[in-house]
Amino acid sequence: MADMLSELDRYIEEHLAESLEDLRRLTAIPSVSSKGEGIADAANFVRDLLEGEGFEAKVMPTDGNPVVYADSGERGNASPTLLCYNHYDVQPAEPLDLWDSPPFELTERDGRVYARGVSDDKGQLISRIAAIRAVRAVAGGLPQRVKFLVEGEEEVSSPSLDAFIEANRDLLAADACVWEFGGVDPDGRPEVVLGLRGILYVEYRVRTLSRDAHSGSAHNLPNAAWRLVRALNTIQAADGRVLIPGFYDAVKGPTDTDLQLMAGMPSSEAFNREHFGVKEFVNGHTEMDYITAVFEPTANIAGIGAGWQGQGSKTVIPAYAMAKMDFRLVPDQDPDDLFARLRKHLDEQGFSDVEVVKLGGERSAVTPGDDPFVQLTARLASEVYGKPAVIDPLVGGTGPVYPFRAYLGTPIVTLGPGDPLSNAHSPNESMSIEAFKLGTHHMARLLLEYGAQS
Amino acid sequence: MADMLSELDRYIEEHLAESLEDLRRLTAIPSVSSKGEGIADAANFVRDLLEGEGFEAKVMPTDGNPVVYADSGERGNASPTLLCYNHYDVQPAEPLDLWDSPPFELTERDGRVYARGVSDDKGQLISRIAAIRAVRAVAGGLPQRVKFLVEGEEEVSSPSLDAFIEANRDLLAADACVWEFGGVDPDGRPEVVLGLRGILYVEYRVRTLSRDAHSGSAHNLPNAAWRLVRALNTIQAADGRVLIPGFYDAVKGPTDTDLQLMAGMPSSEAFNREHFGVKEFVNGHTEMDYITAVFEPTANIAGIGAGWQGQGSKTVIPAYAMAKMDFRLVPDQDPDDLFARLRKHLDEQGFSDVEVVKLGGERSAVTPGDDPFVQLTARLASEVYGKPAVIDPLVGGTGPVYPFRAYLGTPIVTLGPGDPLSNAHSPNESMSIEAFKLGTHHMARLLLEYGAQS
Repeated sequence: MADMLSELDRYIEEHLAESLEDLRRLTAIPSVSSKGEGIADAANFVRDLLEGEGFEAKVMPTDGNPVVYADSGERGNASPTLLCYNHYDVQPAEPLDLWDSPPFELTERDGRVYARGVSDDKGQLISRIAAIRAVRAVAGGLPQRVKFLVEGEEEVSSPSLDAFIEANRDLLAADACVWEFGGVDPDGRPEVVLGLRGILYVEYRVRTLSRDAHSGSAHNLPNAAWRLVRALNTIQAADGRVLIPGFYDAVKGPTDTDLQLMAGMPSSEAFNREHFGVKEFVNGHTEMDYITAVFEPTANIAGIGAGWQGQGSKTVIPAYAMAKMDFRLVPDQDPDDLFARLRKHLDEQGFSDVEVVKLGGERSAVTPGDDPFVQLTARLASEVYGKPAVIDPLVGGTGPVYPFRAYLGTPIVTLGPGDPLSNAHSPNESMSIEAFKLGTHHMARLLLEYGAQS
Repeated sequence: MADMLSELDRYIEEHLAESLEDLRRLTAIPSVSSKGEGIADAANFVRDLLEGEGFEAKVMPTDGNPVVYADSGERGNASPTLLCYNHYDVQPAEPLDLWDSPPFELTERDGRVYARGVSDDKGQLISRIAAIRAVRAVAGGLPQRVKFLVEGEEEVSSPSLDAFIEANRDLLAADACVWEFGGVDPDGRPEVVLGLRGILYVEYRVRTLSRDAHSGSAHNLPNAAWRLVRALNTIQAADGRVLIPGFYDAVKGPTDTDLQLMAGMPSSEAFNREHFGVKEFVNGHTEMDYITAVFEPTANIAGIGAGWQGQGSKTVIPAYAMAKMDFRLVPDQDPDDLFARLRKHLDEQGFSDVEVVKLGGERSAVTPGDDPFVQLTARLASEVYGKPAVIDPLVGGTGPVYPFRAYLGTPIVTLGPGDPLSNAHSPNESMSIEAFKLGTHHMARLLLEYGAQS
């Protein structure tokens, strides 16, 4: 086994240039889903790349951008099937003037490669392919069946993925799933994330007048901003608790296993206090309360606007006011149900005139921390990185994890070449070459050891 | 007397071209106070104009734009002194593309003259000068002492006027004052306004983070928009009542005379319901409640802004939020006192972190409806216009009426050539030539009859 590990390392090192060339070609395609650019080119490139590795690959239509599906084919043994979830779309590169090198030309500097998508998510995909090559070279073949689901709408909230997975349950059937992102924390400890929160994103709109009015009439003419402020104020208490009746009905909170895992997690409390200049966190959260609060759903005003926001004074009664709000949801909360409850709540509070428009919704899902696949991934991470893995039962952000858990029933883990300096979604997105090698090695070990199970 | 009235009419008619030429020259000076343009030119022009009428006139410095002061000199008799308050500054002409003729070239169309300031307030000033000329021609001289105070900052809230009047009480001493605006309502009835509300204008600023954050951390990172919404919500109840302790201490409400006058006033209720598409007025005001509500001070959100206000969804925790608020004040409320109370209220409610910046403050003042000068002005208005005058004890807007009442003790009335089609502050500002003649006649009658008193 020690020999095989050295061989893995040597193979990954010797074939690094090949992987970076794959990555250079893939990142050269500006597949920005929010602009609809480069979508077909990127999908075809990924299909060809996986076909080149011996996969049976195809570009499959969805209600939106196509999915690349690939299958290594049945193995002769009874080993489990592993599904890799990735995406070929990227965030826009703008603002372009903040890039130190062209965003769609892979550039190497100081041990990192720079390009839009190099970390999120094209480097992750290329790392998995590099791991498959290494395993084939070292073990003489792929010891288990591997499938790829590479979508093209992750950066625009995966609107077509739920229906695609539900409609293709048999095709996508697998025993475990490796999620699209993964890597190390600021201390270099490998992180295994088990779940993401869901979301309900809404816009509030209220109009009290057909046109703005002079505020000398404020004793009679109704003000849209006041109306909105009063409506919003009924939605959340000062301690962060959401006041919509039934909002917490489905909320179960962390399990004992989740609590045990979180007790062993490093905390971002000190970093966030410093980085964001926070005097007091929401509801006074600190220490374990700070960590476990991720299991509390939130109502966040993402934006609000009405009337005069420029310099100095203008005496106007705003006719119209708007606000955007994202509710981050925890497992078992249903955004459609909560949207209906929100509407009912506003009606009951006397705000039938406040329009609520749903702009998006996804459900949360988590993998149980005691799942054997989680334990295997974490153990291998600790061995590869030489540091104990951090298992994070739930992160605050949102991703399309629900259809994988609900329709395919796979446990989900994260691993890969990400690190805190990646600047995903920002200018000068990058990937550490050292992190690429470690993440690829970790993936290769998982393929070998999970494949050895039967 | 009937002869003299016909002579007044004839003189005003025959010398109309002369007055319009004065107006043409004055409106050609783009004296936009908010831009600091044309100030000295306009002040000098007004001084020269009044000197040409035999007044002793001078341009006097203030902390801001200069004031033109003029005095007709002592009369031989004991008749009262009349003070005319006007202003030579104007609003910006923008947006220029909405004007049908150049804003600083007086243009006549269909019985109206068009130019920036033609109604607010240069036409008013020229009308008063035309009235003085008519009286001199018809009565053989000015039967009373007349003073002019023509300021240059009315369109930017008269920041220097209070101190100027307080410092020049003796110079400005008078028995009555004719206010800068005045005219007829939509039914052609002459309006005599006796008071304006005060104002306290503030900006709220709250910062909870040193930079915007991803809303996946909303369970821990404090949201500036939520903070502001909660703070604002403590300031006003849903029925419009302001919740700051002591806010109503000085409020006395309308007098019996005010109530009698308001009972005889036409209401803008139907017009505003239609023009602004209002379903329900603040606190359900209707009929007399709608009219008397002007005696209730208000807290108006003039603007609010934080986070993402563009298209679609963005998941951000706003680090910073702001709002603008104008409190319209009634007689005896002191903006400085209320500003201190507002700060104290926010502190007591736990919002010491919400900064409040004062952007402006003026006190309200009213003239008693039973003042003989008011009664005289209204009686003459009814005779000149052939319709009963409307006496309005308090209008919703704000103007620098307080120093006139407090330091000079003069009753104040409105009269002049304004009408509802004037588009003051808007493109295509205009003045009706017929209204000019009637307003000038009314002013001339007031000079004659008030001057005859002793």
